[in-house]
Amino acid sequence: MSRVSVKVDKNNDLTKIGAAIRARRLAMEMSQEALADYAGIDRSHMGRIERGERNVSLLNILRIANAMNCKALDFFLDADI
Amino acid sequence: MSRVSVKVDKNNDLTKIGAAIRARRLAMEMSQEALADYAGIDRSHMGRIERGERNVSLLNILRIANAMNCKALDFFLDADI
Repeated sequence: MSRVSVKVDKNNDLTKIGAAIRARRLAMEMSQEALADYAGIDRSHMGRIERGERNVSLLNILRIANAMNCKALDFFLDADI
Repeated sequence: MSRVSVKVDKNNDLTKIGAAIRARRLAMEMSQEALADYAGIDRSHMGRIERGERNVSLLNILRIANAMNCKALDFFLDADI
């Protein structure tokens, strides 16, 4: 999946979701590597998702939520998007 | 993007999001074609998203929400995922 340009993500929504994921992960004192491994997502891809550099798929959002024992919904509430 | 197998979407979450999008669209009396056009998504892809046959990306969820004057969050609330 290609890097997402500012033009496409004009409201920085990918950045907001990534930040919401990161904040929840840090609150759980979980490393990014552990989250990636639990979720079954490539570690470098996980880093790019948290930085809002990738157009994350719904299945990956769900895998991340499952790995954090929360709902996908929670990320959207936190990000307010 | 390839068709999503039942094995990958074991909780039918893609189906739930698709159904939530479809229900909101119908409540607005908007055609699937009009939604696809407003959102800038290929019409056949839009149909597959509503049927839960595709792993929809976050940017496309956001485009659909924008076309329906709602938040991405609303789909997740409706789908309860």
